[in-house]
Amino acid sequence: MSKVTVMAEPGSHEIIMTRVFNAPRELVFKVMTDPQHLAKWWGPREYTTVVEKMDVKAGGLWRYIQRGKDGSEFGFHGVYHSITAPERMVDTFEFEGMPGHVLMETSIFEALPDGKTKLTVSSVFQSVADRDGMLQSGMEYGTNESYDRFDELLATL
Amino acid sequence: MSKVTVMAEPGSHEIIMTRVFNAPRELVFKVMTDPQHLAKWWGPREYTTVVEKMDVKAGGLWRYIQRGKDGSEFGFHGVYHSITAPERMVDTFEFEGMPGHVLMETSIFEALPDGKTKLTVSSVFQSVADRDGMLQSGMEYGTNESYDRFDELLATL
Repeated sequence: MSKVTVMAEPGSHEIIMTRVFNAPRELVFKVMTDPQHLAKWWGPREYTTVVEKMDVKAGGLWRYIQRGKDGSEFGFHGVYHSITAPERMVDTFEFEGMPGHVLMETSIFEALPDGKTKLTVSSVFQSVADRDGMLQSGMEYGTNESYDRFDELLATL
Repeated sequence: MSKVTVMAEPGSHEIIMTRVFNAPRELVFKVMTDPQHLAKWWGPREYTTVVEKMDVKAGGLWRYIQRGKDGSEFGFHGVYHSITAPERMVDTFEFEGMPGHVLMETSIFEALPDGKTKLTVSSVFQSVADRDGMLQSGMEYGTNESYDRFDELLATL
């Protein structure tokens, strides 16, 4: 299984993550933007994700709630700026544990010659401090676990 | 009349602009987010602005068209992530002459002790090249002209 690659230049507002998935681009895009599938892969395995809203269109809102086994809850929400199937998506992202701190994500889906898909997610933060906080939050581990789950889901479709 | 201050560190994804307006914060916020007023101040004087959409709420879309005297047209659009009256607004911004290049703006309205308002607009771009392109586009001149018009409008209210 592929692993996510994280690029984050010191002092920059940006994090760039790339990962290769074992499925063609149309399928990867379709599954990743489908509210029916989201809770099956988004977030670490130890949490349960509830999709409260996921209106995948320009101006559509999304909100997910992550529930821990101890009953703790974390909310996340944002809005889609643009959806260009099957190649590109731009949206905003806010973790409600740090209200007011927003980042913008650009996700690019590239078809590889072997039928796989390369996903590049570039996030820009409101400040370098916010970006550094995200790097220190265990983001790489959590993202890898999400994407492992996503690859497992793709294998069943 | 105040002038805009532009801060842009070399090699950064960000531009920070500040400007003081001669009116209290509630009024500045209200007028700046009112679709009835937008065309009276947004953009340089030599263009006519048409507000096609301006739905000022989380997930609301906005689209403005700027028309030159020679019939040329430039479109701009984006989506609001959050509106926190009268203090803060986060939205996305895309100039349709460079489709796919999106920035995220955070606007903070601060009440000053003398009844004036300080506006700080921090924009983060998808790349440093996009940020540099914006700096070279005459943004500072255009923004000052918009904000001069905005101050003139405030004086009539």
